Amino acid sequence: MNDKLGNWKRTHRCGDLTAENIGQDVCVMGWVQRRRDHGGLIFIDLRDREGIVQLALDPDRDLASLQKAEQVRNEFVLAAKGKVSPRPEGTVNPKMKTGEVEIEISELKILNRSETPPFMLDEFTEVAENIRLKYRYLDLRRPALQSNLLLRHLVAKTVRNYLDGQGFIEVETPVLTKSTPEGARDYLVPSRVNTGNFYALPQSPQLFKQLLMVSGFDRYFQIVKCFRDEDLRADRQPEFTQIDCELSYVNKDDVMGVMEGMIATIFKEAIGVDVQLPMPRLSYAEAMERFGVDNPDMRFGMELITITDLVAGSDFKVFADVAASGGLVKAVNAKGCATFSRKELDDLTDFVKIYGAKGLAWVKVNEDGWQSPIAKFFKEDELKALNEKLGAEVGDLLLFMADKPSIANEALGRLRGHLGQKLGLADKQNYKFAWITDFPLFEYDEDEKRHVAVHHPFTSPLEEDIPLLDTDPGQVRAQAYDLVLNGSEVGGGSIRIHDQSVQSRMFELLGIDEEEQREKFGFLLDALSFGAPPHGGIAFGLDRLMMILTGADSIRDVIAFPKTQKATCLLSEAPSEATEKQLQELGIRLRARQK
Amino acid sequence: MNDKLGNWKRTHRCGDLTAENIGQDVCVMGWVQRRRDHGGLIFIDLRDREGIVQLALDPDRDLASLQKAEQVRNEFVLAAKGKVSPRPEGTVNPKMKTGEVEIEISELKILNRSETPPFMLDEFTEVAENIRLKYRYLDLRRPALQSNLLLRHLVAKTVRNYLDGQGFIEVETPVLTKSTPEGARDYLVPSRVNTGNFYALPQSPQLFKQLLMVSGFDRYFQIVKCFRDEDLRADRQPEFTQIDCELSYVNKDDVMGVMEGMIATIFKEAIGVDVQLPMPRLSYAEAMERFGVDNPDMRFGMELITITDLVAGSDFKVFADVAASGGLVKAVNAKGCATFSRKELDDLTDFVKIYGAKGLAWVKVNEDGWQSPIAKFFKEDELKALNEKLGAEVGDLLLFMADKPSIANEALGRLRGHLGQKLGLADKQNYKFAWITDFPLFEYDEDEKRHVAVHHPFTSPLEEDIPLLDTDPGQVRAQAYDLVLNGSEVGGGSIRIHDQSVQSRMFELLGIDEEEQREKFGFLLDALSFGAPPHGGIAFGLDRLMMILTGADSIRDVIAFPKTQKATCLLSEAPSEATEKQLQELGIRLRARQK
Repeated sequence: MNDKLGNWKRTHRCGDLTAENIGQDVCVMGWVQRRRDHGGLIFIDLRDREGIVQLALDPDRDLASLQKAEQVRNEFVLAAKGKVSPRPEGTVNPKMKTGEVEIEISELKILNRSETPPFMLDEFTEVAENIRLKYRYLDLRRPALQSNLLLRHLVAKTVRNYLDGQGFIEVETPVLTKSTPEGARDYLVPSRVNTGNFYALPQSPQLFKQLLMVSGFDRYFQIVKCFRDEDLRADRQPEFTQIDCELSYVNKDDVMGVMEGMIATIFKEAIGVDVQLPMPRLSYAEAMERFGVDNPDMRFGMELITITDLVAGSDFKVFADVAASGGLVKAVNAKGCATFSRKELDDLTDFVKIYGAKGLAWVKVNEDGWQSPIAKFFKEDELKALNEKLGAEVGDLLLFMADKPSIANEALGRLRGHLGQKLGLADKQNYKFAWITDFPLFEYDEDEKRHVAVHHPFTSPLEEDIPLLDTDPGQVRAQAYDLVLNGSEVGGGSIRIHDQSVQSRMFELLGIDEEEQREKFGFLLDALSFGAPPHGGIAFGLDRLMMILTGADSIRDVIAFPKTQKATCLLSEAPSEATEKQLQELGIRLRARQK
Repeated sequence: MNDKLGNWKRTHRCGDLTAENIGQDVCVMGWVQRRRDHGGLIFIDLRDREGIVQLALDPDRDLASLQKAEQVRNEFVLAAKGKVSPRPEGTVNPKMKTGEVEIEISELKILNRSETPPFMLDEFTEVAENIRLKYRYLDLRRPALQSNLLLRHLVAKTVRNYLDGQGFIEVETPVLTKSTPEGARDYLVPSRVNTGNFYALPQSPQLFKQLLMVSGFDRYFQIVKCFRDEDLRADRQPEFTQIDCELSYVNKDDVMGVMEGMIATIFKEAIGVDVQLPMPRLSYAEAMERFGVDNPDMRFGMELITITDLVAGSDFKVFADVAASGGLVKAVNAKGCATFSRKELDDLTDFVKIYGAKGLAWVKVNEDGWQSPIAKFFKEDELKALNEKLGAEVGDLLLFMADKPSIANEALGRLRGHLGQKLGLADKQNYKFAWITDFPLFEYDEDEKRHVAVHHPFTSPLEEDIPLLDTDPGQVRAQAYDLVLNGSEVGGGSIRIHDQSVQSRMFELLGIDEEEQREKFGFLLDALSFGAPPHGGIAFGLDRLMMILTGADSIRDVIAFPKTQKATCLLSEAPSEATEKQLQELGIRLRARQK
């Protein structure tokens, strides 16, 4: 015997034993979930990845094992041999997969002992997250996290099988790479050999995947870690995982077609949900018009309706002024919500103010018409036209927003999402997808006083909009597409520029002069000059997708070893101090701390 | 039309067209490999990932396309529509998969143009590696690199499918993690949020995978990037890829059994080679005795034979002295090599000197006995005994090494490998595996004057050797195993310590006091106290394995975007300078350069 197990071999996992195994001699290994002493017998619930099985220890069968069992506490690690037997009548547990059987133990071995865990490892106990993260190896024993990570494996497998079947090959791209101009903040890695220089961790393998297309690999994918040194919000992690794809000789419909097939396969395999294909496709302009946002929740209607024309001539000065100054007046009809209290209406007004709106006008539709502070400003024919346009019926609540277009759309669009949640229209288990396409290519950065790329500088404009690059860049639409699920963006991509002169013009418009282009993007421009095929791609956030598939509330519940919002690992206590010798080798020193 | 492709849809890949497609209207897209003008017609070899197909352009069929084709140069990107036709008699090329057919082009489109590439993109042209790496996107178009990366994808897929079938789940572990004590040199990542602190990139996910076992995931794997900031040798890269595995409730035979099944599956799927299972298993002691090294090339015999006893009493003072002082005298019989020239023998002597040997004694076995400078020192019975022990026959060359054991073994062991290559016994396509087991747990570091772990500090000693930890640690054997293929280590692992007190004792023996243990390994020691199951694992170097499977001479030929031996990327010019703003945010500054 040269190890703790000796010649013991596990024959089954605990959770796999059912009535079909009755009569078999088995050997299981796992953790003590619970021990009960009952009338001279001891029962132990033994747990492994697959589930829990009951061990029955009887002094008549094996006194030595019973005596060992008396020492056993929760989370001890045991190996147990015995015969699978039906549970005595009246003790069958139909809620458990193994509930019809128990193992009559003939030999027990304690493989390891356990201190009392700092918290209960069941699904019921609420534990402070910092404690969960410090003892992550125990937290991960809890059923929810076990199943989240098992599902994550299944999803990754499904993605790989699907993409392989579609002719994609997985290629690894570098982690130690070059700083990304025009991107978010990079993580830097000082080079020892090339002292004074730094690698950057990739924010995405964007340029490498484009180069793989230039190389002729045709269809690339990678499930890959990416990094952004941003101030963390609730659902951000410094390192995150992308399903990253790129395809040659495709237009945007081809990309969306292949990718919605992948998403449907994931939902079917992972959670048994049939996603209807093709998914609806909305232009950015249509999404803004109907929903006010570019990530609309499609689980319910309550669409935004533009009524600027109808109110432009009204006596309600707020609406008329906005209409006159090029603003928008939009409304939603919250069906059946005329019962909202004054407090509820005030809360809605507070909500839209978050998005910069000055206020929110409301109308309750009663038997005898509009009940509203603004009712008096409208003439009979105006009321009629508005009611008709908004499909107003008795019992409805009409909500109006008048502001410059960006604020009117966002505030009312977010309000629509908020109402969907409040009214229970946003069932987590109802999965509604939409592609949003034809985004603007640029947005104007007021701080930097220049155009910046909405997607990234490698995104191709619509062919028909290329002339506008010179005359009216703000109007140029991009061959870009986002996949939105239940109001969240889960993926996004674009057809890329494969023409060197267009790419160079794009850089110019972004304020990058020729010298800077050579320095930062010389290799891309060179690559485009040697026969780059038309190509495009997309990336999906795997962590976000896993949150949706598992129903987890936190991104940390779908990652084995996540970091806190302060980007620390409470388990390993990373990051930590470096030694003076390490810093010397890297040719760097710490700056004096600022107080 | 909103993109370059318009409504053109590719129907086939170039390399997939065969006689079965004759008569079909197809649309292919790819790169111009070659254009030939011939009797008013133009022929273009069009290339994609799958191969090359011939396009035939005929002015009678489509003059416009022919005129376009006249502009075409190598590496232009084309789309071409036409009918698949049999090639005219006498022009069939049986060497090509598509050699029976051509496409009679009815419409041609130039999707992109190309400058003249800096080198020919065929398999025949030798190109300086720095040029290849600078234009990596072109280099990757060459057939050898295309097929290497396609095979790498296939291998990764095979690994994942095999391990999934064996109940492993893939779990992602952090890239931004904590510095590894007792390891090689880490890459560090300065933290901006936690200024003055650093993450380290993982040298391996060792502790995380052990924690996943403590968490009950039972069987883990990951194909994962690892990082070591070492001075690079020919076949090292700063980032490399591991097939990383860990299993619970196993002994070392279980691990080797599952893993050799994986290796056999890879060899079968990737290159059609049947690997015989089970693979031979040798203890470290046996490997050293028979081959002098712990990574023996098993493709040929020529084993090392210990003759210390036979020569201890001889008149040859060199041998007798070594024998008397506890050294080893070992020999190999190079069958049929009595014809070696004086120069060849001198070269062998120079070879062993690399490994610290003082010299090499040789004997040619002739019809009339030993021809050798040392023949005269041996008596008749000694000669007889040596000949018998070494199986010496007329025509053989006997080579003798006498030195302290470490040098005698290594020098003669390496010489054996060298001779195997020289004599053509080491056929690259003959794949001979062996497991080497029971390594020493410690080796003594003369510089640091302390024991260091041969494998790593988490490796379990053989149960039966645990008492020796207190009395004679140098004699303790580890539950460690390496997989050796044709003289290269391709993987290695061990059963881990799952008992907190043994782990703590191990740290002590490595000179890590209790305070340092808490600081550096506190979370591991804690984890072992809460019910850690017996577990063990292994990691394989995917890059090395791909070199063997593809027959590549350089590790850079199996990596899409490799770095040079100076750890730079000639394509993107990483690493590069950081801006002062970046350094300020990270709280670091550069040290003044030393001249």
